[in-house]
Amino acid sequence: MQTLNVELGERTYPILIGEGLLRQREILEQHVGARDVLIVSNTIVAPLYVPVLTAALDSRRVVEVILADGECHKTLTTLARIIDALVANRFARDCVIVALGGGVVGDLAGFAASCYQRGVPYIQVPTTLLAQVDSAVGGKTGVNHPGGKNLIGAFHQPTAVLADTTTLKTLPPREVRAGLAEVIKYGLICDAAFFAWLEAHLDECLAGDAQALAHIIRRSCEIKADIVRQDEREAGQRALLNLGHTFGHAIEAASHYERWLHGEAVGAGLLMAAAMSHECQLLSESALQRIARLVARAGLPIKIDSVDPESVLEHMRIDKKVQAGRLRLVLLRDIGNAFVTADYPESALRHTIETHVGYV
Amino acid sequence: MQTLNVELGERTYPILIGEGLLRQREILEQHVGARDVLIVSNTIVAPLYVPVLTAALDSRRVVEVILADGECHKTLTTLARIIDALVANRFARDCVIVALGGGVVGDLAGFAASCYQRGVPYIQVPTTLLAQVDSAVGGKTGVNHPGGKNLIGAFHQPTAVLADTTTLKTLPPREVRAGLAEVIKYGLICDAAFFAWLEAHLDECLAGDAQALAHIIRRSCEIKADIVRQDEREAGQRALLNLGHTFGHAIEAASHYERWLHGEAVGAGLLMAAAMSHECQLLSESALQRIARLVARAGLPIKIDSVDPESVLEHMRIDKKVQAGRLRLVLLRDIGNAFVTADYPESALRHTIETHVGYV
Repeated sequence: MQTLNVELGERTYPILIGEGLLRQREILEQHVGARDVLIVSNTIVAPLYVPVLTAALDSRRVVEVILADGECHKTLTTLARIIDALVANRFARDCVIVALGGGVVGDLAGFAASCYQRGVPYIQVPTTLLAQVDSAVGGKTGVNHPGGKNLIGAFHQPTAVLADTTTLKTLPPREVRAGLAEVIKYGLICDAAFFAWLEAHLDECLAGDAQALAHIIRRSCEIKADIVRQDEREAGQRALLNLGHTFGHAIEAASHYERWLHGEAVGAGLLMAAAMSHECQLLSESALQRIARLVARAGLPIKIDSVDPESVLEHMRIDKKVQAGRLRLVLLRDIGNAFVTADYPESALRHTIETHVGYV
Repeated sequence: MQTLNVELGERTYPILIGEGLLRQREILEQHVGARDVLIVSNTIVAPLYVPVLTAALDSRRVVEVILADGECHKTLTTLARIIDALVANRFARDCVIVALGGGVVGDLAGFAASCYQRGVPYIQVPTTLLAQVDSAVGGKTGVNHPGGKNLIGAFHQPTAVLADTTTLKTLPPREVRAGLAEVIKYGLICDAAFFAWLEAHLDECLAGDAQALAHIIRRSCEIKADIVRQDEREAGQRALLNLGHTFGHAIEAASHYERWLHGEAVGAGLLMAAAMSHECQLLSESALQRIARLVARAGLPIKIDSVDPESVLEHMRIDKKVQAGRLRLVLLRDIGNAFVTADYPESALRHTIETHVGYV
């Protein structure tokens, strides 16, 4: 088992990464420090891991809320269901919520924890690669609005993240690929060596090699923890983590959160950020080619079909990174060198979207 | 105009108290520091003050959301309406929300500000006595759940509170009385001299005397600001501000937020806290009599009819102050000396409720 901390003063918490964590009663008892426990999960994950978790927590009062799977359920309506369960079972401020599942479950359970009784503790137990490398860490919680992704939410840090890598063995290949989009993102933002490592070891990751997966989870969490430590509430630096996401979120919203997994939309978004950086003469042709190759090898979409490019543009205008009417984007000067800017020609943005998004 | 600060480090903000503040363009321009402004108000207040506010802010892009009046509308559904307006108008993180109205409007607008795009600034422009002396200050925001009052919400401090005392001139007498419940509360918690002042000057307050009202707003805000400064997120001391509220919230929830104004329920709750303190041999008979007399003179209910006492007890069990299955209450040792305790006989709580709440 590996442990690293997200250093945030009194809100510091550990990320535990290892095989079979969910079967280790001691670890669960230590980190689920309350009598009343609400497990939030979904219909896919619950049958696999809820019994394991409840068995390890048999000294507690455990209540479950099992949600439908999918980004389209990340709504205020689903949030209300979680709150209803907390109220119906008379959970007080000294309860704990356990988010058992992928990014959707984590975002919903975390947001419920942030606003139930104005804040109760929660722990993240991510069971997808995407959640283990990205969404379970950093305290961003929230739900979608038809008008845009994650438009309603809160910053609310978990008290622990337990990433049991054994859960990845039951993960469908499509979900593994979606998670790799976030991993590639970290290399692109600030770690060219990690990007090169991914080029060399991608096949092992795709094949589910335990050691390779443990490495990418560890390195991704290190990078994210370091950025979040410096800028918890995204006043500056943390915006880098949105590389590919401004495109990705708009793609998700424009397709009503149904057609693409979040990671797939981000994968396409990474390529679009790279292509636009190249068009703006920031990024070399060869770097763009390496990025396009890795995204394609990871099985991520390099074209987004069945979506109206105008709708994508429209959704980008309500992105959280709009300031003074201008959308800030994360672009690339090189692999491992991302930066935030509002200084780009509108035509380059439009051209990038029109090239990568289409009806067919 | 009087100014005092709520000292919270980087979240410090001013409370401005004075006549005709809303007509002072300079003050509004200074504190509404954004191009995009969403005014949240209700159908009673909006016709009176929205035109004044929009005239003073004619250099901005102002959008209005006008809600139905009343505690029963303080729900997740109404919250969604505010968010919809923000999204529909493409408001970004650099917008500002203005809460123009009483406690319901302030709690809703503040909660919307806390979760829209994970947090945007807002200012409180309270137009009721209750909001000016209490709910607009301190950063507690939220909505009700059928199971209990304010069960969903956030701590989110405003960037300024503008209390224009002129607005009290249009306030119905019932609303003035409701506000006085919170004022009496401050005296009871920690300021016996203020309580005595109220005994001497209550009639002036009820008659709407400008000087008397300015005094009670100032003193109430001072006490609240001081307590919030020491304990922003209610880890201890701040719970004192809930004197009368644990009873009051349960009365509101048990009557479906329809029959009683919040301040009325709190007025009855103050008396119940005093009666229970007396029953627990903490508070003298004479102090209880003084409290009962002032509550009655303020025109606040001393008995709550048409509510099932069992339902009130039931709602108290889901109160935010339940810890380890035990409800903490604010009780009184004397006028001006409140304290938090979970050490009381269950029978005293039941007896207090059965004595003050009934079907008839």
